[in-house]
Amino acid sequence: MKTNLLLDADRLWADVLALADITDPARPYTRRSFTPLYLAGRAFLAQRFADAGLATRIDTAGNLIGRIEGRHPALGVIAIGSHSDTVPSGGRFDGVAGVAAGLEIVRALRQSGTLLDHTIEIIDFLAEEPSEYSLSCVGSRGMTGSLDGEMLALTEPGGEQLRDALRRVGGDPDRLDQAGRNDISAFLELHIEQGIVLESRSLDVGVVTSIVGIRRIEIIFQGEADHAGTTPMGLRHDALVAAANTVSAVRRAAEQLAAAGSDYFVATVGILTVDPSASNIIPGRCRLVIDARTTDQALTARFVDIIERESTDHAAAARVTRARFTTLSDGPPVLCDADLRSALRQGARDLGLAVTDLPSGAGHDAAFMSRICPSAMVFVPCRKGKSHAPEEWADREAIAAGAAVIYQAVKALDLSLPREA
Amino acid sequence: MKTNLLLDADRLWADVLALADITDPARPYTRRSFTPLYLAGRAFLAQRFADAGLATRIDTAGNLIGRIEGRHPALGVIAIGSHSDTVPSGGRFDGVAGVAAGLEIVRALRQSGTLLDHTIEIIDFLAEEPSEYSLSCVGSRGMTGSLDGEMLALTEPGGEQLRDALRRVGGDPDRLDQAGRNDISAFLELHIEQGIVLESRSLDVGVVTSIVGIRRIEIIFQGEADHAGTTPMGLRHDALVAAANTVSAVRRAAEQLAAAGSDYFVATVGILTVDPSASNIIPGRCRLVIDARTTDQALTARFVDIIERESTDHAAAARVTRARFTTLSDGPPVLCDADLRSALRQGARDLGLAVTDLPSGAGHDAAFMSRICPSAMVFVPCRKGKSHAPEEWADREAIAAGAAVIYQAVKALDLSLPREA
Repeated sequence: MKTNLLLDADRLWADVLALADITDPARPYTRRSFTPLYLAGRAFLAQRFADAGLATRIDTAGNLIGRIEGRHPALGVIAIGSHSDTVPSGGRFDGVAGVAAGLEIVRALRQSGTLLDHTIEIIDFLAEEPSEYSLSCVGSRGMTGSLDGEMLALTEPGGEQLRDALRRVGGDPDRLDQAGRNDISAFLELHIEQGIVLESRSLDVGVVTSIVGIRRIEIIFQGEADHAGTTPMGLRHDALVAAANTVSAVRRAAEQLAAAGSDYFVATVGILTVDPSASNIIPGRCRLVIDARTTDQALTARFVDIIERESTDHAAAARVTRARFTTLSDGPPVLCDADLRSALRQGARDLGLAVTDLPSGAGHDAAFMSRICPSAMVFVPCRKGKSHAPEEWADREAIAAGAAVIYQAVKALDLSLPREA
Repeated sequence: MKTNLLLDADRLWADVLALADITDPARPYTRRSFTPLYLAGRAFLAQRFADAGLATRIDTAGNLIGRIEGRHPALGVIAIGSHSDTVPSGGRFDGVAGVAAGLEIVRALRQSGTLLDHTIEIIDFLAEEPSEYSLSCVGSRGMTGSLDGEMLALTEPGGEQLRDALRRVGGDPDRLDQAGRNDISAFLELHIEQGIVLESRSLDVGVVTSIVGIRRIEIIFQGEADHAGTTPMGLRHDALVAAANTVSAVRRAAEQLAAAGSDYFVATVGILTVDPSASNIIPGRCRLVIDARTTDQALTARFVDIIERESTDHAAAARVTRARFTTLSDGPPVLCDADLRSALRQGARDLGLAVTDLPSGAGHDAAFMSRICPSAMVFVPCRKGKSHAPEEWADREAIAAGAAVIYQAVKALDLSLPREA
């Protein structure tokens, strides 16, 4: 990997680590959206934005935005960003690396005396991770007209509505339309891969081809909570037996679909609850949540068909009722913009970096941004693919390389983006 | 069914319902051992015992005992009893019916002017249900020398030791030997069946042949909590997949063992926990608890062999570690005393009641009492086999019939029990 990347890897690294220090000390690394710690992190970022000469504001969707005007503002904005919130006991890189990379790119541009035709914005999107209000990507939803009144009415366990939380962090739920944008010509996001493709193949960067669509399905099996000692095997209505067989079916179907096609497919049962959950009581009710992700919605449709049929069969075999089979959410897969991807690949090649195309199995703010503007992403390798955990790790040079790729792409796009706007 | 049972069905019923009224109003029917409500129930019972002419005391193991001397005290004691505590949100009959039946038998004996050669004791055993101190059958353990220092050191979530709780309810953990008995010639317990054999066959009473042995096994699968979106199917270490396949194996093996033999066998996975339990994280750790019950320990041995092997295979297939496979507890099955069973069957026949032999799938104080004296049980039908739930129900006449069977047996045993004691 080249080390002369035209931007300062140490300065970028220092910003990432400084944000990591702003954590709940009892469970590093935790900086949950809407908390005082989150606002402390943003105050740090806002100061760094200002130090870099960016005009800083919070839009009505609660996004922190730093802006530097281009020579021809009518050409629109090239936006770079990600998010500064974390999951509970998360890592130091997921999200933050993308915001810090944008900031370093602006500093490098200024330091080199480069003034672009396009205006540049660095965006720290509000609450990308699933928040206490049961919603993710709050800020990018807001910027893309995808944050509706039902979502604003969601409450956290303490009873506060998202609407009021948004106000607390500087947004304005009653004027969300002002956060909507039609002036962004390109959006670029750097993120750690959260997988092992780049590391296992010793690659420097990945250019994301598409971001998976995520379908969440909730299944509830209702049986009867009978005495585990006095109910003969033949007279049971054991909800867990149906649930366990459905977990096995999900695994089997996902392995088949992943192995069959060239498209990406994974499915997981991450939640399975058992009621009443006592060693001497036959489970009367089980709830499971399936998370299915793909770059090809046809695969999800086939998967749902299989699970719909198998869960029905398993309920009947266990003499329980499948009381619910519901789609909780269903986001379509998103293709990243071809021109932006080309610019990123070219940037990597210019820098002599080893690059590959790859899909993103995780959701990102870029998926929402693609609704309003050409969007693309750069992945950088992270150790063993670990993410959403304290051991999450990306090397200083890896982040700097990813940022340099975007730096190159921004300079190229400044000249190549359509100018009829 | 005969209605002229020599005892007062209404008076017995009134005692059962009066105790049911002593419940946590927020979650009927709840009278947890060691609580003020429990002590209120016992105060009610002690008064009723006294009204019936019984000398009342609490032994050092915390059992409430009412006693009426026989004509030849040297012959020893015929004891009748059960328990007055409930599970959370339990029923009105489990336990209480057996204590109230004993009380009514004494009243009927006195009313008919019958004075027995043997002394009679009615015992309300302390904390038969699993208590907050993670122990069941506290009182019958104490009376049979089975309550050791390790058990007394068990703590409830608030931190109180069982030792201190025992003192609070009138026991004395430092003089438990005084609760030990060698003077009981027979122990008889009436209990609702908690199953559907009697109801489905329209029988009046069941004479218990044996009380199942219960083996509890804990299995922990340790995988890796990876991102559900970015971890391809082939690279997962999903603990829930191994756990789900083990749940299926438990069901399959239990059905085979139950179907194969003449002996009773059931097995249940009542507890299955998933960590971290988030829809977008592959389960990293799962714990399950298996409850296996049988009247023939050889069946449990075969069952454990099967599950030991299958859980190993399922862990390997899911590329997770079976971090634990532990026996949490292992109580042997107990055969009820043949002479007492004969007396009970004869009593039922004398009364013209329809009777059958059947095993008990639930544990009972009688299982511990059998360690120190001949013991046997009478089951009465309960609606749909439901127990440990508010809808638990046994008919007034059903309870009276069971009590009358014991009444007949007590009078017969008073003459037939060995007199060399």
